[in-house]
Amino acid sequence: MDFDKLFNAQLDALKKEGNYRIFAELERQAGAFPKARSHDADCPEQVTVWCSNDYLGMGQHPKVIAAMQEAVARCGCGAGGTRNISGTNHQHKLLEAELADLHHKEAALLFTSGYVSNWAALSTLGSRLPDAVILSDALNHASMIEGIRHARCNKVIWKHNDPEDLDRKLAALPSNTTKIVAFESVYSMDGDVCPMQEIVEVAEKHGAMTYLDEVHAVGMYGPRGGGLSEELGLADRITLIEGTLGKAFGVVGGYVTGSEALCDFIRSFASGFIFTTALPPAVAAAAQTSIAHLKTSDVERKRQKEQVAKLRRRLTQIGIPHLDNPSHIIPVMVKDPVKCRQLADILMQDYGIYVQPINYPTVPKGTERLRFTPGPLHSDADIDHLVMALTTLWKRCAVAHAVA
Amino acid sequence: MDFDKLFNAQLDALKKEGNYRIFAELERQAGAFPKARSHDADCPEQVTVWCSNDYLGMGQHPKVIAAMQEAVARCGCGAGGTRNISGTNHQHKLLEAELADLHHKEAALLFTSGYVSNWAALSTLGSRLPDAVILSDALNHASMIEGIRHARCNKVIWKHNDPEDLDRKLAALPSNTTKIVAFESVYSMDGDVCPMQEIVEVAEKHGAMTYLDEVHAVGMYGPRGGGLSEELGLADRITLIEGTLGKAFGVVGGYVTGSEALCDFIRSFASGFIFTTALPPAVAAAAQTSIAHLKTSDVERKRQKEQVAKLRRRLTQIGIPHLDNPSHIIPVMVKDPVKCRQLADILMQDYGIYVQPINYPTVPKGTERLRFTPGPLHSDADIDHLVMALTTLWKRCAVAHAVA
Repeated sequence: MDFDKLFNAQLDALKKEGNYRIFAELERQAGAFPKARSHDADCPEQVTVWCSNDYLGMGQHPKVIAAMQEAVARCGCGAGGTRNISGTNHQHKLLEAELADLHHKEAALLFTSGYVSNWAALSTLGSRLPDAVILSDALNHASMIEGIRHARCNKVIWKHNDPEDLDRKLAALPSNTTKIVAFESVYSMDGDVCPMQEIVEVAEKHGAMTYLDEVHAVGMYGPRGGGLSEELGLADRITLIEGTLGKAFGVVGGYVTGSEALCDFIRSFASGFIFTTALPPAVAAAAQTSIAHLKTSDVERKRQKEQVAKLRRRLTQIGIPHLDNPSHIIPVMVKDPVKCRQLADILMQDYGIYVQPINYPTVPKGTERLRFTPGPLHSDADIDHLVMALTTLWKRCAVAHAVA
Repeated sequence: MDFDKLFNAQLDALKKEGNYRIFAELERQAGAFPKARSHDADCPEQVTVWCSNDYLGMGQHPKVIAAMQEAVARCGCGAGGTRNISGTNHQHKLLEAELADLHHKEAALLFTSGYVSNWAALSTLGSRLPDAVILSDALNHASMIEGIRHARCNKVIWKHNDPEDLDRKLAALPSNTTKIVAFESVYSMDGDVCPMQEIVEVAEKHGAMTYLDEVHAVGMYGPRGGGLSEELGLADRITLIEGTLGKAFGVVGGYVTGSEALCDFIRSFASGFIFTTALPPAVAAAAQTSIAHLKTSDVERKRQKEQVAKLRRRLTQIGIPHLDNPSHIIPVMVKDPVKCRQLADILMQDYGIYVQPINYPTVPKGTERLRFTPGPLHSDADIDHLVMALTTLWKRCAVAHAVA
């Protein structure tokens, strides 16, 4: 049987829609961020990365690099096994203590990625708690959706960022159900922020557990980088806070924090936690160093805010349609997958500006965009160069100037 | 609502059964493997690890450590994003080429873990191929089971390692279905090995795709470490070979290899591949170095085989019941969760021998065991010490001496 024919048929359909993904091949250069070397033949050798999730450049911070190197030299590369079978390293325990402290919680549990932490935690809670119902914000991340789907419990979708709709839907549930309200603080594609206080109050009113994904907020919001829940003083009213080590903290991995019993429950029953090799001790050491640094250092957060505000202002001045939001994410709306790809190609090839086109299924069809994430290491000259390139391109292309 | 009460109720049940997991906290010491520092209060400070999945000690190989350090120094810690959004690093592409070559395939695709590679690949194949039916060996790993479950396609369980049963079950399927036969080469808990030639022939007879998990074989079997499929000269007849970078290769991560179209298909449609931060470039560099080393060096594999044979012989001599199998895994059968835990505790506390008790749900109830994985770095003195301890304990405890 010709299996390749089956695969190619679906790939061809993707290509026709303009949604086939082409990855930019980069080589990061420690100390040069946001500059990186491009390995793509038709691109300049050095490019400026404008779409990194290493939001604060911590992946190249000298202290974080030093911690990772020191741990590799002292302990070697891999963890050696699953957490249960020889893979729990001292560095994992230190990191979990650091994370619990970051979110003002009793305990934390480390996963191989943020995706796995959402998938494993939600599927375990939903499948094992008696009569569980997960109430999921309509725009939750794929990892949460897959976790909820995997739980096979009842689920209810509530309108994005709408506490009144959540209230109505909670009120409609039988009183004997275990209610879990799952939502994010910062939504990564639109960059909008949830009304956390209102959501928490509605959840409390109905005796519901709150499950908060802070992956696009940890490190960047709150006086110690504890996320939006820390900034708003709400961390202790959230049952479970989930986060990542792969974005503002600059390394890789995911986690959940909450009560001792909650973390022990997920530790003991989540297949995606139990049956997988633990993160390398050096990754844990690097992440811990990054978190500890951002607990006391505010310069990265301040400078990020400045550069985000600067780019936003400039885009407004020149009439480039971008979504207004209170976060560090600036989505420039193109609304067509083919044009979005073309714009990104020209920016990369002619200007050395790397921004990935964001198409379906990451965002709904018709809302294709270029998503910029200015960070503390983008210079004013980088912003000038980007604004110049966008001005030229917007004149050249037939893209609508109307604010989205 | 008191959620902790819900969690504790289920944790208490686990504890009563003897299946509550207690993790040993280790600190690996580069160059000292299989010795490691214990951080548990009632254990000797230095212990010998007898249950590592770093089967060949490659996680502490000087070349692998050097590669990881060099990449951290040059490129920093994290990848910077998902593979699609700024996270594809040059090192990922080099590693994928190395993996394709290892398995004599056109292409390879990297995942954050072996668990995720199985889960994402099987769920994507099962859910997207027309009229797919996954035929799964009865003892497949949790990650494969979860992937198949997530696919929500039809599935058929065939008797463990029984090609005749597979034949019958394939024959019973309608001809228009897309048949996917999923199995492992080395089963990690019993250490038994599949009849690969027969399975492949049965699959070919019915026009079925073959999905082979080689996680407990890569690096250790085959002239270049390409797994059992390489050793048996069958790699080119397997549609998809899945493996891990976290066991014999000593680092972390998972992958699939196969045709260009197959890898592109999974790359383009698998949620667990698309929506997650890529592995750190330094992890990819370390893994690539490890694979390249084991392609040409055979000393690790030879020495491992010698030490495995030595321990097996000694256990037989002293009448310790262990499963006979052709692999590097030696399961010593205890068949009781509480005794299994007690034996492991005494070995650790009194003898500095670390072997994790393997209880339900990792193995069926009543088959609890201590699972030893001798490697090339276990000395003859290590084996003597282990045999002495087990002899003493077996006399002391009321564990049946009958061969399992």
